[in-house]
Parts: sequence; C-alpha cells; structure tokens
Amino acid sequence: MPTLVLIRHGQSQWNLENRFTGWWDVNLSDKGVEEAMAAGTLMRDRGLDFDVCFTSLLTRAIKTLDLALEQMDRLWLPVHKDWHLNERHYGGLTGFNKQEMRDKVGEEQVRIWRRSFDIPPPPLDADSPYDLSGDRRYAGVTVPHSESLKDTIERVLPYWDAAIAPALRSGQRVLISAHGNSIRALVKHLSGIDDDDIVGVEIPTGQPLVYELDDALATRDSYYLSERAA
Amino acid sequence: MPTLVLIRHGQSQWNLENRFTGWWDVNLSDKGVEEAMAAGTLMRDRGLDFDVCFTSLLTRAIKTLDLALEQMDRLWLPVHKDWHLNERHYGGLTGFNKQEMRDKVGEEQVRIWRRSFDIPPPPLDADSPYDLSGDRRYAGVTVPHSESLKDTIERVLPYWDAAIAPALRSGQRVLISAHGNSIRALVKHLSGIDDDDIVGVEIPTGQPLVYELDDALATRDSYYLSERAA
Repeated sequence: MPTLVLIRHGQSQWNLENRFTGWWDVNLSDKGVEEAMAAGTLMRDRGLDFDVCFTSLLTRAIKTLDLALEQMDRLWLPVHKDWHLNERHYGGLTGFNKQEMRDKVGEEQVRIWRRSFDIPPPPLDADSPYDLSGDRRYAGVTVPHSESLKDTIERVLPYWDAAIAPALRSGQRVLISAHGNSIRALVKHLSGIDDDDIVGVEIPTGQPLVYELDDALATRDSYYLSERAA
Repeated sequence: MPTLVLIRHGQSQWNLENRFTGWWDVNLSDKGVEEAMAAGTLMRDRGLDFDVCFTSLLTRAIKTLDLALEQMDRLWLPVHKDWHLNERHYGGLTGFNKQEMRDKVGEEQVRIWRRSFDIPPPPLDADSPYDLSGDRRYAGVTVPHSESLKDTIERVLPYWDAAIAPALRSGQRVLISAHGNSIRALVKHLSGIDDDDIVGVEIPTGQPLVYELDDALATRDSYYLSERAA
C-alpha cells in the first residue's frame, strides 16, 4: 500500500514575527528546529520509513527534512529539491508584518488576500528587496510576481503527476517537506476538498500528516501521526 | 575553467575516540560540526560557489556537506549521495580502538593494514555487530568484507568517470564531501600520485581542497583554501 507523509516545515523566524514570507528564504526559528527534530523522532518511534523524499528550494523546508531524517538515521535517502513545492508567492505582501498590513489596508482586504482561493495579492514592486527574479536558484524558472492559492495548486499538481505519483506507483514510500500552501494543494487533491473549503484548512507546522493510498493513489485514510494512538 | 572542491568530513565521534570506522555510520563530534560550518564560511567568504554536490551514504559526510551549504546559503543545491564515495571499509578492524589493536597484534601489523596500498585488513566476522550486508541503504550493492586503499580507488574512480567528471565537463562547479580514503582516491587520480606515496598523503578534516582543472580535467593548480591568501 503506497504510503505518503507530508510535513509543513517547523516555525520559521518570520512565522514567529508574523510576516508574510512566501518565496523569501527565511531560516527556522529555534522552536522550528525542535519541531523538525520531534517530527523525525515521532516517525521513527512509530516505525514509519521512506525510500525517497521531496522538498522545495527553501531552506526552512530542506532543513526541516534534514533534521527529521537525521533523527530517523535516514540522512542517506535521496532528496529531490524542486521549486514547484515552494510556498505560495505572496507578491507585494512579502516581508510585511500581517498586523501592519491590516492597519494599512484594512482587516477585510488582508483576509481576502490570505483566504481567497483565486485572488492573488498585489505584485511585488520591481525595486523590492524581495525580488528573486535574478536569483540563480531559479535560473530557467519564471518567478511569479504574486500567486493565489489557485495559482499555487496549478504548479504543485503537475509536479505531483510528473515526479511524486510515479515514485509512489513504483512502490516507494514518500516523504514530502513543504509549506502551508503547497501542502494545501496536495491535501485538496488527495482529500477531494472544494475550492471554497481548502482556504480554511490549517496545516500545523512540524506535524507528519500520513496518507494511506490505494494502488490507484486514491486516499484510503489520512491522519496526523500525533493524533493516532501509538 | 572547471572548479572542484573536496572536503573530508569534520571530526567524527570515532575519530575522537581513535577507532577504525570505515562504513560504520558514526555522527560528527561537536568539533566536527564546527569544522563543517567553518568550511562553509570560508568558502562563502572566498567567493567559492557550486552547481552540484556529491557525497557518500554516511551521515558524517552528508552532515558536513549540509552544514557547509547552510553557511553558504546553498542548501537548495542538488546533492547526489552514493556509496561509491564511502570511506574505505576497514573489515575486521571496524569498531576497534587503534591503540588497542596495536597492543593486540603489534604496531607493525596495524601500520601495514593502515598504510599499505593493496593489503586489506582481515574480513569482518560474519556475526560482527558492524556487519552492514543487511542494511537496506546498500540494497543491490555487494558490501565489501574489507578494502585496501587500492580496492577503494577501484570503486571511487568509476563513479568519478560516470557521474562527477561529466558534471565538470558540462561546466558545473562541483563540491564533494567525502572521507579520508575516498578523497585519497580522487587526489591520487587528479594529482598523479604514485601507489607508494598516496598512502602517506594525509587529508585534514574540514579543509576545502580546491582543484582548478583545465577543460580536459587535468589539474592546473590545487591547494587548501585556508593556506591561500584571501
């Protein structure tokens, strides 16, 4: 039975400061490091094991994966790093504190940007210090100026189809370390959640989310590992 | 001009305890962690950068690479992990303290096992706790019972030819994090060192060794980064 585990990275420095992060490459906080290690310990203690791992090009997801794998004595597993699993690009919101932005444009506008399915935030200013279009990590990639959740899903799912689903079909057990919205994209697909409902699905940091799939990769069961009895 | 940097992993717990390690998967000591981070800081400060990384299947080399890459903001680089870059397999010496082994079999015998080019140590006992033949990390690989330096070279160089040299020829800058003897294999090849001399070449832990190569991958210059003026 194909097994898939999704983990949202541990708390980052900007999660802690309540700032919009998106594609900006912020490291884990001390708490985030602890969350990542605890996730690895939990998976090890519950007997979960993997054959291949996928993550984004962002330090906080890669480090979460590495810290968890070290606890499992599995640092040697192959890891595929790909921009398709990056967080949603928050455009012009990047770097702003969420409360400051509410004070500036109003609670309702921030709610729309954060919680609507298909309305992207305003684009990043061309002279923004958070512009990544020249970052060589994204050579050959058209870095978005801003993304809605819908936009994010539309680049996550082709990667699922091209890289992750084939690994599962070939019998490999898969661990994915990613971000709130790239994981929402996978959860929407795997759990069949409506456009209107997915925006309200909260993905906690550092909690292994287990999907037991059938051979056609339809979901038989899914649960947070910490919520199941050992 | 193709650039290649080799790093021997930072001090491991068994380096510290003066025990033969080989393929046994021992983690870095605190000093080893510091050495790895310092290597990354040095490479970053000297403006070295990479496109692809290679390492072994052993935690101490993978972690050295990850810690160095994090200092360089390069955790996102692709990393290939392969058993061909593992340390020399020390066979029946694995786990023994080097001094204890000298007391047991004599100084000269230990010197021969450690420093001869083509004499492997005695094989690992079939019931040894250090037997890795059932470790799934080596599924499909014939785990050696013991290796001489010559044996090690004979499995490192085919991997160089098949995976690393093509990356360099395609213009990629390559970073390799590996082990005393797998690095000796590469240094012997790249610097044209005789069989009798290579056994005496000491590779210090955590020191980036830079090879500037020509387009045919012949060595134009090689040096430890820390020994060159900034």
